[in-house]
Amino acid sequence: MEAALPPEWKVERWLNTLAPLSLASLRGKVIFAVAFQMLCPGCVSEGLPQALRARAAFPESELAVIGLHTVFEHHEAQGTEAALAAFLHEYRIGFPVGIDLRRPDGAIPQTMRAYGMRGTPTTLLYDRAGRLRLHQFGHLDDMRLGAVIATLIGEAGAAEDMAPEPERAGAGCTPGGSCG
Amino acid sequence: MEAALPPEWKVERWLNTLAPLSLASLRGKVIFAVAFQMLCPGCVSEGLPQALRARAAFPESELAVIGLHTVFEHHEAQGTEAALAAFLHEYRIGFPVGIDLRRPDGAIPQTMRAYGMRGTPTTLLYDRAGRLRLHQFGHLDDMRLGAVIATLIGEAGAAEDMAPEPERAGAGCTPGGSCG
Amino acid sequence: MEAALPPEWKVERWLNTLAPLSLASLRGKVIFAVAFQMLCPGCVSEGLPQALRARAAFPESELAVIGLHTVFEHHEAQGTEAALAAFLHEYRIGFPVGIDLRRPDGAIPQTMRAYGMRGTPTTLLYDRAGRLRLHQFGHLDDMRLGAVIATLIGEAGAAEDMAPEPERAGAGCTPGGSCG
Amino acid sequence: MEAALPPEWKVERWLNTLAPLSLASLRGKVIFAVAFQMLCPGCVSEGLPQALRARAAFPESELAVIGLHTVFEHHEAQGTEAALAAFLHEYRIGFPVGIDLRRPDGAIPQTMRAYGMRGTPTTLLYDRAGRLRLHQFGHLDDMRLGAVIATLIGEAGAAEDMAPEPERAGAGCTPGGSCG
Repeated sequence: MEAALPPEWKVERWLNTLAPLSLASLRGKVIFAVAFQMLCPGCVSEGLPQALRARAAFPESELAVIGLHTVFEHHEAQGTEAALAAFLHEYRIGFPVGIDLRRPDGAIPQTMRAYGMRGTPTTLLYDRAGRLRLHQFGHLDDMRLGAVIATLIGEAGAAEDMAPEPERAGAGCTPGGSCG
Repeated sequence: MEAALPPEWKVERWLNTLAPLSLASLRGKVIFAVAFQMLCPGCVSEGLPQALRARAAFPESELAVIGLHTVFEHHEAQGTEAALAAFLHEYRIGFPVGIDLRRPDGAIPQTMRAYGMRGTPTTLLYDRAGRLRLHQFGHLDDMRLGAVIATLIGEAGAAEDMAPEPERAGAGCTPGGSCG
Repeated sequence: MEAALPPEWKVERWLNTLAPLSLASLRGKVIFAVAFQMLCPGCVSEGLPQALRARAAFPESELAVIGLHTVFEHHEAQGTEAALAAFLHEYRIGFPVGIDLRRPDGAIPQTMRAYGMRGTPTTLLYDRAGRLRLHQFGHLDDMRLGAVIATLIGEAGAAEDMAPEPERAGAGCTPGGSCG
Repeated sequence: MEAALPPEWKVERWLNTLAPLSLASLRGKVIFAVAFQMLCPGCVSEGLPQALRARAAFPESELAVIGLHTVFEHHEAQGTEAALAAFLHEYRIGFPVGIDLRRPDGAIPQTMRAYGMRGTPTTLLYDRAGRLRLHQFGHLDDMRLGAVIATLIGEAGAAEDMAPEPERAGAGCTPGGSCG
């Protein structure tokens, strides 16, 4: 029996890519996705630089790196495409970034809610078969992350059922909490 | 003969203070002013943390620390008070910040233009008599900065004429240039 | 046809282990070896902390981490076992460290010479079959290193012939050169 | 009434200087002295780099910067002049360093004992009149240190009586303790 696949990303608009992306369209590659907010200090100082290092360390043919702009606070400051585009330009972030779909009734956007993310930054790793293999809020060690990505790249496409690693404590921004 | 005083700040709105501030109203204190943009990476990683360290290292009775939000690019992303307020909240910047007055015809706001600033971050140090004693674009060594501030604090209020230190090369964002 | 195995380590004494170690005795595990000198600044600030992170990131059952004290300068200061033991104690280095065998006629000790190492720190990675798969003088990115180790761990024991990666430029101490 | 002057340094040998130094011979300058051990991690990563920054930030005509090698553990590894000379060479420490006089009966050398130092690194600041104005074990903020040095430089030579600042908690190596 096969494990259920994780929910598709719900994105209202993509930047840094001509065509919209999806888990389905990236099937066959390992996927590194970082959920962030442009005004989240831990995303700026740690989460996004790590995503750029992952982009530099692995070939695009094996690893897709994408960002999800999961705005759950300061919508007026972070919520426009223009603000995000300016941020990506200044911080030289060239990988595709999707704007998580805002829900009419409230703060937490749809992909963030569907995955039960605790805050930003959150790192998601998917294997070649589209299964979620790591879901981490906050800090991730570079060496362990490199090891996990390489292990997923080394797996055959139709690998065995595996559950994602349990989430460990980390520092970042949480809805209704502070950015610690 | 007395040296001409530097131009007053032109600010359209102050955050983190009940009453507007001015060079005149702060006369008698040494003043540390950092000109920044919320989407300038060098401001976020260096200029603003240094201003916070200066705030922590010297008493408010001797040193005033203020920020000037000198937006010269990405006006749609950085140009609103709401965006700046969200940024100050997330980065825990508690000192007063003035929004440099935007000019109808173009990019460089009025205080930035009046001082001939090259970009952001730019640090300005004024002595107790209101004279500009340091004008620095880019990186400033903490130890040297601490020494200059202490020296200015130690001076009598009606000190001798002094010219500001010549500006040294530094890294940051420049109008018409890139953020290096 | 099988590739020639790399030379065995020539060690005059081991610290932090009850029994002497060798490539042969560790066959079956991936091996991370860092050649260092206790007075090499790049070893203290980068090479050894990275070896400690590798030790923490991978299980001992899969990865052996060892140090080689390859003294090629300042023999009177670094050349005694007491000095090395004090250094390992203060820097909390708990993995086994072998003292590279000093040659009677000169500066470069035997293992360092046999491998043609350019200086310290130098990182060597061996696969489960004892073959040398990486030989790097100077800086190594954590994420890439984690990926290489995980890839070697994932390989079967009797893998295909592979040459070590070509060495890239790096910073460290070189015989007859300075520590850059 | 004048405050008692602090004890003279007891040094068995000086490196990086042609003539021996003393508090008396440096009278008239502000003096920055860092007590360290070559195998103390906090000295290598923080105390000594800070001394080098102080050396770079202030002119030699106003500020003397010296080191005191206060060996209280691992005498066999750190206790020789050759070991210290190799260390100073590798870490590019060019300011004068005195070897604190070893006492026949035990671990704590004489200057360290006379000052009641808690461990290494310890920073001592003396004013132009030779009085001890700061005695700090462990970490010192660069900006505050720059401010204190500049203040002492700005004082007249025959200044008023002042007690040293009370010592604050810090991290480093302590006799009978661990290096934290």
